Amino acid sequence: MTDLIRLSAIDIAKKMAQREITAEQYVRALLARIDERDGSVRAFVHVGREPALAAAKALDQGAVQGMLHGIPLGVKDIFETYDMPTQGGSNVYKGLHTALDAACVAATRRAGGIILGKTVTTELATFPHNETRNPHNLEHTPGGSSSGSAAAVADFMLPLATGTQTLGSTIRPGSFCGVVAYKPTYNLIPKKGVWNSADSLDTVGGFARSVPDIALWVAGVMSYRGLLVPESVPAPRIGLCKTHEWDNATPEMQACLMSAAAKLAKAGAVVKDVTLPDRFKGLLQAQIAVGVWETGRSFADECHRFGEKLRPELFERCGHAYDVDPAVYHGAQALGRECRQMIPDAMGDCDVLLAPAAPGEAPKGMPTGNPIFNQVWTFLHTPCVGIPAGIGPQGLPLGLQVVGRLGDDARTLAAAHWVHQRLAA
Amino acid sequence: MTDLIRLSAIDIAKKMAQREITAEQYVRALLARIDERDGSVRAFVHVGREPALAAAKALDQGAVQGMLHGIPLGVKDIFETYDMPTQGGSNVYKGLHTALDAACVAATRRAGGIILGKTVTTELATFPHNETRNPHNLEHTPGGSSSGSAAAVADFMLPLATGTQTLGSTIRPGSFCGVVAYKPTYNLIPKKGVWNSADSLDTVGGFARSVPDIALWVAGVMSYRGLLVPESVPAPRIGLCKTHEWDNATPEMQACLMSAAAKLAKAGAVVKDVTLPDRFKGLLQAQIAVGVWETGRSFADECHRFGEKLRPELFERCGHAYDVDPAVYHGAQALGRECRQMIPDAMGDCDVLLAPAAPGEAPKGMPTGNPIFNQVWTFLHTPCVGIPAGIGPQGLPLGLQVVGRLGDDARTLAAAHWVHQRLAA
Repeated sequence: MTDLIRLSAIDIAKKMAQREITAEQYVRALLARIDERDGSVRAFVHVGREPALAAAKALDQGAVQGMLHGIPLGVKDIFETYDMPTQGGSNVYKGLHTALDAACVAATRRAGGIILGKTVTTELATFPHNETRNPHNLEHTPGGSSSGSAAAVADFMLPLATGTQTLGSTIRPGSFCGVVAYKPTYNLIPKKGVWNSADSLDTVGGFARSVPDIALWVAGVMSYRGLLVPESVPAPRIGLCKTHEWDNATPEMQACLMSAAAKLAKAGAVVKDVTLPDRFKGLLQAQIAVGVWETGRSFADECHRFGEKLRPELFERCGHAYDVDPAVYHGAQALGRECRQMIPDAMGDCDVLLAPAAPGEAPKGMPTGNPIFNQVWTFLHTPCVGIPAGIGPQGLPLGLQVVGRLGDDARTLAAAHWVHQRLAA
Repeated sequence: MTDLIRLSAIDIAKKMAQREITAEQYVRALLARIDERDGSVRAFVHVGREPALAAAKALDQGAVQGMLHGIPLGVKDIFETYDMPTQGGSNVYKGLHTALDAACVAATRRAGGIILGKTVTTELATFPHNETRNPHNLEHTPGGSSSGSAAAVADFMLPLATGTQTLGSTIRPGSFCGVVAYKPTYNLIPKKGVWNSADSLDTVGGFARSVPDIALWVAGVMSYRGLLVPESVPAPRIGLCKTHEWDNATPEMQACLMSAAAKLAKAGAVVKDVTLPDRFKGLLQAQIAVGVWETGRSFADECHRFGEKLRPELFERCGHAYDVDPAVYHGAQALGRECRQMIPDAMGDCDVLLAPAAPGEAPKGMPTGNPIFNQVWTFLHTPCVGIPAGIGPQGLPLGLQVVGRLGDDARTLAAAHWVHQRLAA
């Protein structure tokens, strides 16, 4: 059973297709792991034990059809689920049940997937942290806002889990927890039933322990087989991209990127330096302006009628939405549009870029860390695949991200798989 | 009382500030109009009589503070409201109540606005029509999907109402019903609590009988006073834009645009022809690809678990989402990004463009008409303000739209007001 929980979703799917294992066996193995570990890690806000077992038994009695047949998914608690509460890590939504599933949750079930539980989010997917710990060291943050999803996948309680990213809420916790994290091109995965924060930034994605696994989930959800990672991936042309935020990377993260580049070149990739255009220097501040303006306005009812139930720091931050000058907001959006069109030239003949996924290891304490290596890519709407790339001086994971052109998710996933395999070797 | 319901929101706000009328009087006048007319027009799916009167009385007892003090709003039935059902014109959502307000509904209340009721939408803001009639001729469609909002404002049952546009769901019903309709720049008004259809297209907007009125609503909701139309607006520089869809306009719509251009030039505007670049010819098909791909995937749970409750034609249309080739979807998104960057050059020194808002008058029968003059602008994310501009051979309204640059909503609203005043004169 211990081995079962460590298998990839791809391998589990194969074993189920060959009837070597049942969905029920696999769900029970994961539930046993949750029982063993989640008292410490606290990745789940709700475990759907009975509905998951019922779904597994039903699947075991039928033919193997869907791409996600029998594969369990953890669902960040800002995604609506008709059979489990959705509470967004906030006292405002305590005990809330919704009538329908979020679109990507329903699509997971339609493809044969099983919803195993709801994972802890920071409050409304913003910054006030909740109870999840980093499974590699319980004194450290797992990152956020998709804290529980990243931690549960890292700790073998789930093979797959959903996330969202508005600043750095998918790639950063993936880096801190040492798992694969995928933020697709903006609006690729439908947002229906996923709670809004900043409409121009919010992007649905997810976590797995391998790139083919997360690609399997998205391909299944979208009925988009072109996203599946092929058996054989050619060596990509990689742009080594320190980004304009490089000085915010710790020495160990800087070393991690440089040694990864050397290793990948040795393994056969073309690796060249890519310097982002000077225009991109304004993107970090622009992202902040858009995020602050939009997030505070999104939470109008939370602030208006339930202000005293929100964490005071979130309530206060929402108020700052009205301090952003409209000209600054519109100018920021214009800069985003302009820079998106500059990406192809900036990347030249590279298939993907390779950049830090976070400043370094997960910080000690529960605040979820700095999204500074994620904000610009979120705003640019590019696909990003975070991959574990090393271990830092505190024994915690260091992650890099593979960044692609807008809409070029299939190539980006394939390249990220190639990179991940070479760095893990 | 009859006069009261015909006043503008701006004038009502002034009279309330001067305590010439009370919010309760105004709400009662509108309720009387609804009682008189809505049996025929059928714009409302739910009238919040008691909560609206209670809110009005409470406002009358306090100081006049918010920008929308005492002004009632009708809310399209895909916007969540905590005190009224939200059913999206679909049997899937029959009887649904939500815990919170949509962000823009809550912001309306915070600014002193009153929610008077929920207005009829086509099913899930797509194409299967519901019961609303065109108040100018009950045998004709009001347009859709924001059918009830447009019809109620046209028929003096409401001064303001919300809408959304994914294809042509705000500007088209505005044109058919002879009211002002405003589709802001994409993502300007927060989408939280408004049901998704196609994330890359969905835009929240609204209806009024004058441009300053709809600007007042958005300024109040967003706490963005710069959107208010100034007392004095200079004559704008107008680009007469037949668009690449010109052949789909009826002779009377073509004549309406041309005679409006002549009238505006005579009134002091610079009017010049603007031909959109050839690249823009692909935008209509690109918009369709994005809309079909995204909408079908958004309604995953509706189709998966409630397929038999959906109108069969909607269920079938959702299935076509999976027929769109991913390369076509991604290519369409790339064309959209490219053309958005070409708008400033295409507009040259014009402040705004003037284009048809619909092919012509509202068609006879209940299908909601053709959005072909709206789809490209929706996809381009530009602000559009629809204004009544004439009467067609069947005695029904003809509308034009004033289109601005991305983020240039304030100038677009001001120019639209100037145009509307000159055409109404």
